[in-house]
Order: sequence, then C-alpha cells, then structure tokens
Amino acid sequence: MNARLTGWDEQLGLRMIKATRDEVVAEYTIEPKHHQPYGIVHGGVHCSVVETVCSTGAGLDAMSRGYGVVGIENHTSFVRAVRSGRVTVRATPITRGRRSQLWEAVARDEEGHVVSTGRVRLLCLEENSDLAGEKLAARGK
Amino acid sequence: MNARLTGWDEQLGLRMIKATRDEVVAEYTIEPKHHQPYGIVHGGVHCSVVETVCSTGAGLDAMSRGYGVVGIENHTSFVRAVRSGRVTVRATPITRGRRSQLWEAVARDEEGHVVSTGRVRLLCLEENSDLAGEKLAARGK
Amino acid sequence: MNARLTGWDEQLGLRMIKATRDEVVAEYTIEPKHHQPYGIVHGGVHCSVVETVCSTGAGLDAMSRGYGVVGIENHTSFVRAVRSGRVTVRATPITRGRRSQLWEAVARDEEGHVVSTGRVRLLCLEENSDLAGEKLAARGK
Amino acid sequence: MNARLTGWDEQLGLRMIKATRDEVVAEYTIEPKHHQPYGIVHGGVHCSVVETVCSTGAGLDAMSRGYGVVGIENHTSFVRAVRSGRVTVRATPITRGRRSQLWEAVARDEEGHVVSTGRVRLLCLEENSDLAGEKLAARGK
Repeated sequence: MNARLTGWDEQLGLRMIKATRDEVVAEYTIEPKHHQPYGIVHGGVHCSVVETVCSTGAGLDAMSRGYGVVGIENHTSFVRAVRSGRVTVRATPITRGRRSQLWEAVARDEEGHVVSTGRVRLLCLEENSDLAGEKLAARGK
Repeated sequence: MNARLTGWDEQLGLRMIKATRDEVVAEYTIEPKHHQPYGIVHGGVHCSVVETVCSTGAGLDAMSRGYGVVGIENHTSFVRAVRSGRVTVRATPITRGRRSQLWEAVARDEEGHVVSTGRVRLLCLEENSDLAGEKLAARGK
Repeated sequence: MNARLTGWDEQLGLRMIKATRDEVVAEYTIEPKHHQPYGIVHGGVHCSVVETVCSTGAGLDAMSRGYGVVGIENHTSFVRAVRSGRVTVRATPITRGRRSQLWEAVARDEEGHVVSTGRVRLLCLEENSDLAGEKLAARGK
Repeated sequence: MNARLTGWDEQLGLRMIKATRDEVVAEYTIEPKHHQPYGIVHGGVHCSVVETVCSTGAGLDAMSRGYGVVGIENHTSFVRAVRSGRVTVRATPITRGRRSQLWEAVARDEEGHVVSTGRVRLLCLEENSDLAGEKLAARGK
C-alpha cells in the first residue's frame, strides 16, 4: 500500500495496511491531537477511522462494478477508553448490493482489546451522478 | 467563549459560539483538510463535530451535578454533501438522566440546509471513576 | 383515517391519526402484550412504531413521485420506561431525496414526556423493482 | 429451553433455542402477522428480535453479578427482504462492563443468508433500582 492519504485521512495520521473489496485494514498511533479533554481518544476519531475503512472497501467493491459510493449513516460504539499506543482497525462487508452496501469495522489496541466498533451504510451511485455540484467519478472511494 | 480548544477539536478547527447545559453551538469553515477523496466533507468530520457539541453540553450538565460523562454511542446521518463554506452545528438535550444522557445535534450550511445530524448517548460517571487508568475529574467534559 | 392496519401494525394495535407526506401521527394504548419481562414496554415495540410512522410518511412522499421505499436502518433510543397508558408518536422528514430519505419519530406518553425516539433511513426504489421475488408497486408504503 | 415467553416475545412467536451469558439463539417462523404492507417482514420485527436476544444475554450476564439491565439504544440494519420461512437469530456480546453492555445479533434465513443485524446498548442497574415506579429485581432480563 503506497497510496498517500490526503485530507481528513491525513489529519488522522492513518496508514493503510491492506485495502481490497473484501477487507480493509488500517492503523494509527495515538498522539495528543487525537485526544478529547479527558486525555482519551476523541469519539470522533473512532468514527472517522470507521468511516474511512468501511467506505474504502465499499468504494473498491463498487468501482469493480462501475459504481461509486457515498456514506449515509455512521453508527460507532465506543467500547474501551484509550490514551496511547497503536490502534488497528479492520473492515469487512455485511452486504454489498447494487443499490446499497453495509460494512462493519472493529478497532483494537495492541493487546487485541476492542476499543471501538461501527457500521457504515453507503449508497451506490452511477458514475457521473451529481455530487454537490460535481460529477462523480467511480474511482474507489 | 474564549476557551481555546485543544486536541481533536483543534484539528477540526472548531469555534465554540455558545456552550451551556441546555444548548451548544459551534462552527467551522471547510478547508481541504476536512475532505475525503471526492472533495466533499469526510463523514468523520460530521461525526466528530456532533460528538464534540453533544458531549460538551452533556458534560456541562453533569458537572453542575458533580458528575462526569463519557460518550458510548455516536450515530450520525449524512444528509447533504458539502465542499466549502461555513458549517454551524447546534446540540440540544433529549434526555439528561442520572445514569445516562442523550443529545442531538444538527449541522447546517450557510443557507440553513441540514448537512448532517446525529445523536450521542453518554454515560454519567461519578467523580474519581477510573477512566483508562486515571481518575475522572468532573470538569464539564 | 379509516385505513385498517394489517400485519405487524395490527399486532401493535396502532391507530393512525394523521398520515401525509409531511407528517405522520399514530397512537396505541399499552397492553400486557407490549411488555418485556420487567413489565415495561418492550424496546421492540418502540422500534416497531418508529418504523411504521417513518416508513408511512416516506412511502407517501415517494408515491407522490412514482417511487416506493424500503427501510434499511432503524435506530431507536429508549428514553423513559413506561408501563401503561396511551403513547402518541409523530414522524417528520429530515431529508427526502431522490435516492434516499431520512425520517425521525418521537413517542410521548399522556403527560407529553418523551418515551422513545428514533430515525429510519429508507431507500427509494423505482416502481416494479424486484423485492424478495415480487414486483414493487409504488403504493405508499 | 422450556421457559414460556410472554408479552411481546409471545407476540413475536419467538422460540428460545439457547440462552447463556455468552450466546443467545432464538428462531421464529414467518407468518402474515409479521408482514408490513409489501408482504415482507416488518422492520420492527427485525428490531424486536434483536432486542430480545441481546437483552436476554445481557440480562443473564448481569444477573450472574447481581445486576439488572435495561436497553437504551437499538440500531438494526435490514439486509435482505424476506417473505416466508424460518429465521434464526444469534446474539453475542461485544462488551460486558460494570456500567454498560453492548451486544450484537445476526438473523439468518434457512439458507444462511443474513436478513438483518443489529446492536443493543444496555445500562447495568443495581438491584432495587427504581424502574418506572417499581423496584428492579435482578432476574436475568
């Protein structure tokens, strides 16, 4: 994986380990920028990572069929507060239909404890669909 | 509001406009760092902002009663893709019990269109509860 | 409203008070059949009522444009345990797009306290879409 | 399993196959009473079954430690429309803390296809906690 991440994924400091239409794995090392005021990882970080790995997998699947995807719902549960260390998150598909996909992601700390887990529902869009005023190119995410 | 935001809230570029135990309002201006690969705001940004405003309000309410709070569930819906401009988000409580709180947030663009909306469920914790190896101080978030 | 409810809505004992593409209101009187083992209304009842009122409104909106809808996500929060009395639930739209809709419902007891609240995300389907082996007729739900 | 189900579980026609603090399995046979107007299983049925199996497992776990539980959030995704046949649902824990639990359930048709899947977040309550005006007995659900 040598795709350089940009935008919000770069803010996250996320590193892609594996990305296929069947499984996506990424990791990040907790830094102070990931904290909320108590000094634990901010819930929004957990949601953001879930969003990226699920939509990356869904996008790769859709791209293989000439579609694009956009996320419509993100539901993330916070399981275990963490302050430091490396977090690894893995996404797998629950359903990959023609109209919609549902993916699930689980994030674990270095000891393998679940720290958060979430699901993302995505809509499949035809190539060249209008998306906030621009044409959608089906390029994997 | 002159509280300087730190950690993930600073990454977000969030500005607090109002923060009471009954209502929290914040805003941010969309920059390239907020984008996902299509050039629209990343779903994780929407979730993060919802998380911050809901937990700030819940924390202020809990603090007034000597408690702290931690988020346990964040469910955010993405309603309208946005590329640029200012987004304003407002959180209000649905329930503020002794054991748990539920808050709702709605984010709008400059024309007042809803761009995303979510709910955060939080647990109330007694002061000095253990939180990932440290004592919780009930200080508003 | 004199449409007789059938199937699961009949099991619920739901009475439709108002049903338009902008607002749906229904009510039921709590009976022992609605209880879980503690003697309070079962969470599944709260979810079911949210599902019906949101999808009724979404279906009416879609029908007016020649579409049908199917629910894909139901997220319901339980706010206040109730044992008896009449519960009134009201659904309103958050977004009604061409591809997808999002509706929200709030259920209240006779004193006006919120007892539960939820959101349903629905996919819009073209008339005659295949749905579990049969053709979809766009008829309002 | 010869515990006779009552209330909403009896309305569902649910049969408990296995119920321990680590895993709960139940099944039902689809009847017209489970349908929504299109003739497929109503989303509220999927939510209800998820609610029952998750809270049964959480309740058994809590009971073994002298607690009770109440559900606070149910998030169910509808994956595959079904009209008839037998549906089997299995719940497993994601986290079982002292304050809160999170369980997940997956429902499958007779061919093993996922038809729906959901998560329930529950609060742990001390025995004799007040619950809608009555004392909570820690008895497994």
